[in-house]
Amino acid sequence: MEVENKYFTLKQYVDGFPSESDFELRSGPLLLAPQEGSKKVIVKNLFVSVDPYQINRMKKRSPSHKSANFAQRIDLGKRIDAMGVGRVVAACGYAEEELLGWEDYTVAGPGSMLTKIPTSQFPLSYHVSVLGSSGLTAYAGFYQICKPRRGETVFVSAACGSVGHLVGQFAKLSGCYVVGCAGSKKKVDLLKGELGFDDAFNYKEERDINSALKRCFPSGIDIYFDNVGGEMLEAAVANMNAFGRVAVCGAISEYTSSERRAAPDMLDVIYKRITVQGFLAYDHIAVHDEFISVTSDYLRHGRMQSIEDISHGLESIPSAFIALFRGDNVGKKLVQL
Amino acid sequence: MEVENKYFTLKQYVDGFPSESDFELRSGPLLLAPQEGSKKVIVKNLFVSVDPYQINRMKKRSPSHKSANFAQRIDLGKRIDAMGVGRVVAACGYAEEELLGWEDYTVAGPGSMLTKIPTSQFPLSYHVSVLGSSGLTAYAGFYQICKPRRGETVFVSAACGSVGHLVGQFAKLSGCYVVGCAGSKKKVDLLKGELGFDDAFNYKEERDINSALKRCFPSGIDIYFDNVGGEMLEAAVANMNAFGRVAVCGAISEYTSSERRAAPDMLDVIYKRITVQGFLAYDHIAVHDEFISVTSDYLRHGRMQSIEDISHGLESIPSAFIALFRGDNVGKKLVQL
Repeated sequence: MEVENKYFTLKQYVDGFPSESDFELRSGPLLLAPQEGSKKVIVKNLFVSVDPYQINRMKKRSPSHKSANFAQRIDLGKRIDAMGVGRVVAACGYAEEELLGWEDYTVAGPGSMLTKIPTSQFPLSYHVSVLGSSGLTAYAGFYQICKPRRGETVFVSAACGSVGHLVGQFAKLSGCYVVGCAGSKKKVDLLKGELGFDDAFNYKEERDINSALKRCFPSGIDIYFDNVGGEMLEAAVANMNAFGRVAVCGAISEYTSSERRAAPDMLDVIYKRITVQGFLAYDHIAVHDEFISVTSDYLRHGRMQSIEDISHGLESIPSAFIALFRGDNVGKKLVQL
Repeated sequence: MEVENKYFTLKQYVDGFPSESDFELRSGPLLLAPQEGSKKVIVKNLFVSVDPYQINRMKKRSPSHKSANFAQRIDLGKRIDAMGVGRVVAACGYAEEELLGWEDYTVAGPGSMLTKIPTSQFPLSYHVSVLGSSGLTAYAGFYQICKPRRGETVFVSAACGSVGHLVGQFAKLSGCYVVGCAGSKKKVDLLKGELGFDDAFNYKEERDINSALKRCFPSGIDIYFDNVGGEMLEAAVANMNAFGRVAVCGAISEYTSSERRAAPDMLDVIYKRITVQGFLAYDHIAVHDEFISVTSDYLRHGRMQSIEDISHGLESIPSAFIALFRGDNVGKKLVQL
C-alpha cells in the first residue's frame, strides 16, 4: 500500500521566539511494505513528544556537541526528528520510542534508536512521558545529580513541566520538603492539590523571586532542580544552603533570548560550596532498569501520577511547540496523531 | 615587659576598589608576660598573609555564612585578623599559623585556631604559603574538586597568584597539559620559564579571551581552575570539553565590581555536562597530612617551587593588600614584620 506521508521541515532557523512560519508541512509518497533485502523499519507514529530543548537545535548557532548527537542542529529542509511512540507497520511488529519525527510515518534505518516497548499495563503515551525520556531525566537528574537526603529542601522550577512535575513527586517520595514554581494559578493549584508539593508559587505574581524563595525556604534551599535558568537560577543560588546542589536540566527562559543569561553570584558558589552541574538523561542509561522498575511501581500503587497535555493531529505540532515557550502546557506535551 | 602593639582596623567598609583611607593604624599597650590563670597566648607576628578574599569580609554586605566563620565580616574599628606565622612570646613556646592579624602581636584566646609548626627544613614563610592555606587550597581544589586524569588539559587563571602558581605545578606533576593566564609579560615568562607551564598568555594583550583559549586549547579544556570569575569564566565554559570540571576558588575580577558577574552559557553547561563547584580548603582538612607529605617531598626534590612576594613592615600591609587588586604581586603576597 502506498500512502502520502506528511512531515514538517524547518523552513528557516529560529531566531528568538519561534513562529509557525519557521516550519513547513511537506508530503511525499511512501510504500508501506517491507522491501526485499531492506533493513529499514517503517513506523506509524502515534504520539510525538514536544519538547522545549528542540528549539536549541533549530537555531543557526546551535550547541552541537559531538558527544550528544541528538543535540545536533536540524538542517533546513530536512525532516524534524523527535521522540515518540509508534507502531511498526512494515518489518516485525513492535512499538517504539525515539527517534521518530514530526511526521505521520518514520522510516528508520538500522542505525536508528528504536527500542521495543514491553507489554505494559500503562497507556502507550506513558512510554514517552513518565516512563520515557522525561521520566529518566527527572529520575537520573534528581537521584544521580542532586543526591537527595531525607529531610532536605528541594526547589523545582517549571514545576508543572514534563520533567518538573515528576521531580517534585520523586522528591516527596524521598522524604524531602518540596516547593515548585509555575506560571499560573491553575498550575500552582495542581502542584499543591494533586501532586503533593508542600508549597508552590506563581512567579508571574511575585514582585521579586528572591523574596518569594526567602518566604518559601526560611531555612534555605538544599537542592535546586533548574529547568529555566535566568533570574530564577540567580535567586536560587542566593538562597542556597552550604553544600547545595543545582542540577541544570534546562534553561527555557534563556532559549528565546540570549540576553537573559543567568549570572549567579560566584561568592555564594564559593562560600556555600555550591555545585552546579549540567546533565543529560542519555548518560545515565545505567540506571534505566532501576528507573523503570521504581517508577512503574509508584504508578501501579497510585503514589505518583503522570500529567500529560495531549493535542491532536500532525498539523498541530508547530503550534503545540510554540505554546511551550508561552508556558501553555500543563505536564508533558504530546501530540497524538 | 610592656610594648606598644600596633594594629590595623577597618575604618570604613570597602566599596569598590579598596584605598588606604579604608584602614586605620592604631596602637595600645600590651604586657608581654603570661598572666596568672590566663589561657591566652601572645604571639609576635613574623609573616602576615595578604589575601584577595579578605576584601569580601570588608564589605558592608559581606558573604557571612554560618558554616564558614573565617569568612565573617570584619567589624568597623576591630582588629583585622589574617593568616600568618609567628612566635609565641608568652606561654609555652611554639610558632603558629592562623589566625593572627594585621598587627605586631596577636593575643590568642583558647578558642583560636593556632597550630604548632613542626620542626622543618623549609623557610618559615612556606608555612603560610606553599605548605599553608594557599598550598592546601591548590592541592585540595585540584585533586578533590577537579579530579584530574593524566593527559587532561588544564587552564589556570591568575596563574601567578598565591594559589594559581601551585595548581599549575601540581597539574604538570600529574601529567596534564597546563596553560595559565596572567596580567604581565614578566608573569607569563615566569610561568613558561620557571614553573614549567606548557603555555601561558597575558590576558591584557588579548583582544578577546575566547579566541585566546581557542588558540591555546585547540582540543578544548577539561579542567578550569578559576581564580578570577567574570568573562574569564564565561570564555572557559565556552571552550570546555564534555564532562569538564570548573573548580571555583576565587573571583577576583568580581570583588571590586559587582557588575562584572560571570554569566556562563547554561546551554554549554547542560550539553557538555559541565560541573561548576565552589570549594574552601577548610573542608578538606582530611587530606592535610597527605598534602604536607606530598608537597614537602616535591619541594625537597626541587620538583616544585614556592614563589613569594614579600614586603616589609606592618605599615605596608594596606598598600600590599590594595596592590593585589591591581595584580602587582607575583606569587604569594606576604608582609614580613
